[in-house]
Amino acid sequence: MTTIAEKQVDNGVNVAALLGAREALGKAPEAARFNWRATCKWMRGTHSRTSVKDFFGLGQEQTHRREFTFDIDHPEVFASEDNGATPVELVLTGLAGCLTAGVAAVAQQRSIQLHSVTATIEGGMDIRGILGADSDVRNGFDGVKVKFDIDADATREQIEALVAQSQNRSAVFDIITNPTNVTVSVA
Amino acid sequence: MTTIAEKQVDNGVNVAALLGAREALGKAPEAARFNWRATCKWMRGTHSRTSVKDFFGLGQEQTHRREFTFDIDHPEVFASEDNGATPVELVLTGLAGCLTAGVAAVAQQRSIQLHSVTATIEGGMDIRGILGADSDVRNGFDGVKVKFDIDADATREQIEALVAQSQNRSAVFDIITNPTNVTVSVA
Repeated sequence: MTTIAEKQVDNGVNVAALLGAREALGKAPEAARFNWRATCKWMRGTHSRTSVKDFFGLGQEQTHRREFTFDIDHPEVFASEDNGATPVELVLTGLAGCLTAGVAAVAQQRSIQLHSVTATIEGGMDIRGILGADSDVRNGFDGVKVKFDIDADATREQIEALVAQSQNRSAVFDIITNPTNVTVSVA
Repeated sequence: MTTIAEKQVDNGVNVAALLGAREALGKAPEAARFNWRATCKWMRGTHSRTSVKDFFGLGQEQTHRREFTFDIDHPEVFASEDNGATPVELVLTGLAGCLTAGVAAVAQQRSIQLHSVTATIEGGMDIRGILGADSDVRNGFDGVKVKFDIDADATREQIEALVAQSQNRSAVFDIITNPTNVTVSVA
C-alpha cells in the first residue's frame, strides 16, 4: 500500500530520505549538530549585504550549491534608500518558507497530493519601540499572523492537520515563539 | 558644534529625520503602527518563493521601491534541491542586517565615522528536533552568536557601546530573544 501511495502522490519531497535521516541521526546525535551561518557587510547608511554559503552538519563542513546574497535596508519612510527588504521582512520570509516546506513534507508523508500552497504573513509592529520614543513598547513584532490557502486532494480537516503538524516541526516558528539566547561581541 | 560634527561624519544615515520621526510619532501613536508583510508561494518539494512589496505605516499603505523576492529551500544534505537559502539562514540574515543598520544609525548619532562593519553570525541547531527524532530537542536554534568587526574613528569602548545600543533598539534581536505570538490559520 505504501508503494502505491508513493507512486500516486508526488510533492517533490523525498520522505524516505528524511525518515532514514531521522532514524540514523537518532542514533548519532553528533551528526545532528548543525551550524548555520551568514556574513553581513555594511554598505552605507542602513544598507547591508549578507552572504550565505557554508554551514556545518553531518559532522563536516558543507557548502550550498551556490552563494545566496541578500540586500537589506530600511524603507524611504524611514529616511533610508530602500535598497532591500527590511530585516523584519526577512524574518517573515523565513517563517513562511519554513512552514511551507513543512506543509509539503508532511503532505508527502501522509500521501496527500498538493496542487498549490500560498502563505500570506503579516507582522504588526509599533515603531515607537525601535525609535526609542516609548520604552514600554517592544522593538519586535506585537504579533504575527500566517494564513494558508491550500489546494490539495484532502479534506479541510486533513489540510488543517497538515498545517498544525508543520508548526510542530518548524524551526522558525520555534525561534519566533520561544526565546533564544543571542550573544553579540566585538572582535 | 553639532553642525561641525555632522559635516565631518557621514555614515549615510539621516539622523535628523529619525529624531524628527521619534518626536512626531511619540505624539501620534496611530502613525507608528506598522504591518510588515510577505507572500509565499510553494514551488515544489521544500522550495518556495516569497515576495515582499507592500506594507502599512504612517497611517497608510506603503510600497517598496521595487518588489523583493526570495527563494527558500532545504539543502542537498536534507535530500532537497538547494534552490535557496534555508529558512533559518533568512532569520540570521535579518538579525545581521538589523544590528548592522543599528550600528550605522547609532554611530551617526554619536558622530562616529565608520569605515567598515562586518558581522559574522552563527546559529547552532540540533536537527533531531525538526526531524522529530527526539522530542526533548527544540526545533529552533540552541543559541546564536554574532561577532562584529568594526573599523571606525572611535575607541574600542565606543565601538562596544555602539553595538550594545544597536541591540537595545533592534527589532530582530527582540524577536529572537523574546517570545512572540504567531497565529497560523487556513483560509
